[in-house]
Amino acid sequence: MVPSKSGLIPAPDFLKTHLVPRPSFNDLTLPAAPYLKSFTPQGHEIITPSLRTPLSAHDRHVLYTVQEFNPLLDSSSISSPSWSLIAGAIQQNYHLFDGFIILHGTDSMAYTSSALSFMLTNLAKPVILTGSQKPFSQVLNDATDNLLGALILAGHYPIPEVGVFFHHNLFRGNRVTKISASDFAGFASPNLAPLAEVSATGTEIRWDLVLSSLPPSSPSPSPLQVHPGLDTAHCACLRMFPGITALMLDAVVRVKPIVGLVLETFGAGNAPGDDEVVAVLADAIGREVVIVNITQCLKGSVSPVYAAGRRLVDIGVVPGRDMTSEAALTKLAWCLARGWDAEGVRCEMGRCMKGEMSV
Amino acid sequence: MVPSKSGLIPAPDFLKTHLVPRPSFNDLTLPAAPYLKSFTPQGHEIITPSLRTPLSAHDRHVLYTVQEFNPLLDSSSISSPSWSLIAGAIQQNYHLFDGFIILHGTDSMAYTSSALSFMLTNLAKPVILTGSQKPFSQVLNDATDNLLGALILAGHYPIPEVGVFFHHNLFRGNRVTKISASDFAGFASPNLAPLAEVSATGTEIRWDLVLSSLPPSSPSPSPLQVHPGLDTAHCACLRMFPGITALMLDAVVRVKPIVGLVLETFGAGNAPGDDEVVAVLADAIGREVVIVNITQCLKGSVSPVYAAGRRLVDIGVVPGRDMTSEAALTKLAWCLARGWDAEGVRCEMGRCMKGEMSV
Amino acid sequence: MVPSKSGLIPAPDFLKTHLVPRPSFNDLTLPAAPYLKSFTPQGHEIITPSLRTPLSAHDRHVLYTVQEFNPLLDSSSISSPSWSLIAGAIQQNYHLFDGFIILHGTDSMAYTSSALSFMLTNLAKPVILTGSQKPFSQVLNDATDNLLGALILAGHYPIPEVGVFFHHNLFRGNRVTKISASDFAGFASPNLAPLAEVSATGTEIRWDLVLSSLPPSSPSPSPLQVHPGLDTAHCACLRMFPGITALMLDAVVRVKPIVGLVLETFGAGNAPGDDEVVAVLADAIGREVVIVNITQCLKGSVSPVYAAGRRLVDIGVVPGRDMTSEAALTKLAWCLARGWDAEGVRCEMGRCMKGEMSV
Amino acid sequence: MVPSKSGLIPAPDFLKTHLVPRPSFNDLTLPAAPYLKSFTPQGHEIITPSLRTPLSAHDRHVLYTVQEFNPLLDSSSISSPSWSLIAGAIQQNYHLFDGFIILHGTDSMAYTSSALSFMLTNLAKPVILTGSQKPFSQVLNDATDNLLGALILAGHYPIPEVGVFFHHNLFRGNRVTKISASDFAGFASPNLAPLAEVSATGTEIRWDLVLSSLPPSSPSPSPLQVHPGLDTAHCACLRMFPGITALMLDAVVRVKPIVGLVLETFGAGNAPGDDEVVAVLADAIGREVVIVNITQCLKGSVSPVYAAGRRLVDIGVVPGRDMTSEAALTKLAWCLARGWDAEGVRCEMGRCMKGEMSV
Repeated sequence: MVPSKSGLIPAPDFLKTHLVPRPSFNDLTLPAAPYLKSFTPQGHEIITPSLRTPLSAHDRHVLYTVQEFNPLLDSSSISSPSWSLIAGAIQQNYHLFDGFIILHGTDSMAYTSSALSFMLTNLAKPVILTGSQKPFSQVLNDATDNLLGALILAGHYPIPEVGVFFHHNLFRGNRVTKISASDFAGFASPNLAPLAEVSATGTEIRWDLVLSSLPPSSPSPSPLQVHPGLDTAHCACLRMFPGITALMLDAVVRVKPIVGLVLETFGAGNAPGDDEVVAVLADAIGREVVIVNITQCLKGSVSPVYAAGRRLVDIGVVPGRDMTSEAALTKLAWCLARGWDAEGVRCEMGRCMKGEMSV
Repeated sequence: MVPSKSGLIPAPDFLKTHLVPRPSFNDLTLPAAPYLKSFTPQGHEIITPSLRTPLSAHDRHVLYTVQEFNPLLDSSSISSPSWSLIAGAIQQNYHLFDGFIILHGTDSMAYTSSALSFMLTNLAKPVILTGSQKPFSQVLNDATDNLLGALILAGHYPIPEVGVFFHHNLFRGNRVTKISASDFAGFASPNLAPLAEVSATGTEIRWDLVLSSLPPSSPSPSPLQVHPGLDTAHCACLRMFPGITALMLDAVVRVKPIVGLVLETFGAGNAPGDDEVVAVLADAIGREVVIVNITQCLKGSVSPVYAAGRRLVDIGVVPGRDMTSEAALTKLAWCLARGWDAEGVRCEMGRCMKGEMSV
Repeated sequence: MVPSKSGLIPAPDFLKTHLVPRPSFNDLTLPAAPYLKSFTPQGHEIITPSLRTPLSAHDRHVLYTVQEFNPLLDSSSISSPSWSLIAGAIQQNYHLFDGFIILHGTDSMAYTSSALSFMLTNLAKPVILTGSQKPFSQVLNDATDNLLGALILAGHYPIPEVGVFFHHNLFRGNRVTKISASDFAGFASPNLAPLAEVSATGTEIRWDLVLSSLPPSSPSPSPLQVHPGLDTAHCACLRMFPGITALMLDAVVRVKPIVGLVLETFGAGNAPGDDEVVAVLADAIGREVVIVNITQCLKGSVSPVYAAGRRLVDIGVVPGRDMTSEAALTKLAWCLARGWDAEGVRCEMGRCMKGEMSV
Repeated sequence: MVPSKSGLIPAPDFLKTHLVPRPSFNDLTLPAAPYLKSFTPQGHEIITPSLRTPLSAHDRHVLYTVQEFNPLLDSSSISSPSWSLIAGAIQQNYHLFDGFIILHGTDSMAYTSSALSFMLTNLAKPVILTGSQKPFSQVLNDATDNLLGALILAGHYPIPEVGVFFHHNLFRGNRVTKISASDFAGFASPNLAPLAEVSATGTEIRWDLVLSSLPPSSPSPSPLQVHPGLDTAHCACLRMFPGITALMLDAVVRVKPIVGLVLETFGAGNAPGDDEVVAVLADAIGREVVIVNITQCLKGSVSPVYAAGRRLVDIGVVPGRDMTSEAALTKLAWCLARGWDAEGVRCEMGRCMKGEMSV
């Protein structure tokens, strides 16, 4: 039996405290696992102990080690610099491991998974975020199952995507959203079926949905590319509602820092209001503000071709199709940081990239 | 057989075009139904033809007439004045009918149902909003089932609430949200079970959930009171996200028209960011801006007692518990129009009124 | 506008009573639809009036006529002769229409759809069964939506399968089961996703699941073949339970009429009991009784390869994989009527045919 | 901190192998837990080590010990004698523990939980069966969560019922059925909401559904009574299907060992067939065979008052309302073992007892 696969998990003295004592994460029937070399995001070599899971249903022990950020990233104040650190850690260790797991608080996890999906190009290995509604420190928790499932997935299936694993399901990173603050089934990707489901009879991968790591045009894999940096400081996300005035909208859109705005509209992309509202938006677009139109509905799409919101399309509002708010915001912030002009950002926002929209 | 119950439906020449030709809405085996008197919101008496449904499972024909607003209200630009008109129509006809049905576009329906729930006090008769994902004019539509179900409910069960009936379920008006732009099951009330469900074996009413029309303290019913007017012009709703800056938040909150702000935060009420963000919010509260904290999650609650968001509670942010964005915005706009000071609005926003929050 | 598609519906003076008066089934804006020729199952030519649906989302009027059996078939005592009549009606009219709809009581519908799926080979046109939990005669009914949906599907999509359309979904005929006596969502195919779903944004066909009308080996379509006759008189279906004795099992299996037996076992195919039970079954198999093992679970499969039930496989019990009871019984009855010996029946029962099992 | 609650779990050297090494089941931060006295079903005193869970959300350590049957009961051949042993173990230890957990294979678990619900009267403490789709020995398993959840429930909430805990939910023992051989959510009680649900925000008990341990008439609790013995040897369960002949039915019902028969009929209780089938059943009832009519539908009910199956009621078939097959079979076997005549058994089968039917 040779240990075959491995992963990388950031957390606070996590390995010793939470994984070593748990037989599900640390097969004590094997001789001690080796120390492994890995690199910090800054490129410093470090040597950490590794663990092996017990034998999986596919007769493998998943070998993994844990790398902790120092200081630990705080998920409630995570943003562009931390996302770059995570991307950096993946880049530094990309050749050493078969997959990567990121332990993350649930509150901002769907933002991070979206952001990473845009930052990493030519990804050929699984990058799986996971977390839990109840931490390891609670008797009844979902941390064990979520982390273990992520380890098994990352250690067996070469899904070349950024994903979120939660409550038996793997969701595409830029399609997922936190739907419940209380249920163990806390995440869903309402406009796309899960990429994988773990059940009692095994793991079912929807390979028909999984993105190929090979672009259709290039026969051989290109090396991973990391495009760090998201300009979240110049984005905002505003919910439309009945009675919002053109005056209010104008005042908000004129706020200095706003360069990109996600508008959450009704149903298939209808904005409340009248000509004045449209005029305000047109005016803002004339001032180079990029405005993206997405739906308030959990499930649904703002179409670029149908009548609803057609008037908004005509003045240059980008129809966001079935993107989540999380995907729209992080994609916008990522585009804004690329140095493109408003037209370039609008163009990219309207394209499907990295599987974040279904067409 | 005496026709026993009745309702009121606003729409464009709707009765003649859509209801008269459909046997489900117009029992042709009966002699012609009488013309009925009703009043416009302005108090003018009008006389309209009525129709009767075929015999229901409870052996009743539901007798109803249709009142159309002139001009028709447009659901995509509906707001406070239209809501007042609807409330006025109910008030003018309250003694004449046993129940009221409001036909409404789905996009803004959950806002209207929330708004009405705050505007009507001592309601003792059902007020049911309904609509459809596909209109009568489509071969395959859900308009027939939704309107018919609303008629049957309003015509048989004295549920003293503002509700939304959609795809077999009656939801509380201020707990409901549009969850899908594409599914026939377009609405849900994620934090409260439906008040009623229509199945093939009959209608099941959750009387344990239905609000009583009698306040516990008063033994006899008080007359209906209408409190019209919502100040939507001074409200906004902003989504927090990782990387939003204190600078951005400050700029938005300082926008002149904003007097009330709904903040959509993470999970159980966590705002991203640090001391600066808290300082910006505290500052705004000092300037008499009312800020309400609700969750971005479809299901979940911002608790007034738990640690998450505790810091926000301490500076005067109102914990919105499990209110939907629709309920929070309309309740805030309703409170702002009452002439109370910021403390009064905050106090009312934090109380459960009209069943809009579970405690 | 030329009427383009058509179907065939059996029922009692149904067209005049229920369809003519309903605008959804009878577009009165068009000139009268023609009388159409069709054939009875016995081959007699009949001429019946036809109707047209209003314009569909695909800009088509579905043209259809209704053929009633005389006497009408009673769904609660339907069985092999009636199934043959239905198959005969399809065969006689196969070249005249683009699709066929069978109105059926819900109680036995999944049995009929399974039976037909085995009786019809080389099917290249849709045969869709539908019905309702509440009939047309009820104010609130699902008959309208179910029949209309079936008409739209059969009139637009050349799905070459026997299916059941119910509550927005088209299920494969031999995978479907009635799951609820009370819900409008009365049917499901627990081990296979629906073949089609009708939502407010249109009809989504899972073409990846739909069977091809062309067998892989033959380049041109073969003509429809009908294999009538099911020997239901010699089949039984017995549920295993803890404490059932070998004595009881033996007594039942020795009952004269039984030639084929469906055993509903636990989970993945485990039978309760001990060596004696196995001996009784082996003995019965020795007497040429065909025994098929299926699971009591709504969702699940009796595997031919895994350990559970391995012992039963060894003695000649056929592992029924994920067949429903309905599919197993009708397939067994169909095989028994083919004149094969026990080995031939067992062999066919273990093969996947007509898409009734997933492998 | 005093350990406060306790339970009893039967299994094979289970405590040492599976619980001691797992921190979730064995809080190593505490001093060693005491050895505890308990009694075997035969009344022999035994002394076993105990363990304590870590601190629960209610600030309790659940103290428990494990009693293993010798020989271990095999869930696939479990039946009346084993059920009596389990009931005996509960009776012998009833005064010593606050709750009881029974580890059980999933295949026959719903039968055992039904049987126990009839065998135990005046139950005032929780008796919870649990198991898993994947055992402890698998890396990814649901055994941990299911057993831990059962321990927490039994150790905190005095639910005086026999229940099944599975995948976050507690179901009433005689309403539950195994719905999936593959999903972690393997059980459901389709006609009754779960009695309790464990979510990330805590445990919600539906006290409105939980049976009272006090009969309405008696003010003080009566002592637990155990009524062991089920006569499963004289029961059978037969599925009706289209085309089953009166001859076949007669032959099966005349089989010697059959004294009680569960008939699985269509929808709301319709049997296929004609007068002959009814005559066969009437005849059997005349020969003192008790016949119970239940539905094949996962969700649904065979009504004693409605027309469907009325003819069967008239000849003495017992309408089984919304009982599962598991509940009907075990209740019938329990009644048959009570020494009552056929009329007495029929009478008891038609009454609601122990909450096994909703009325």
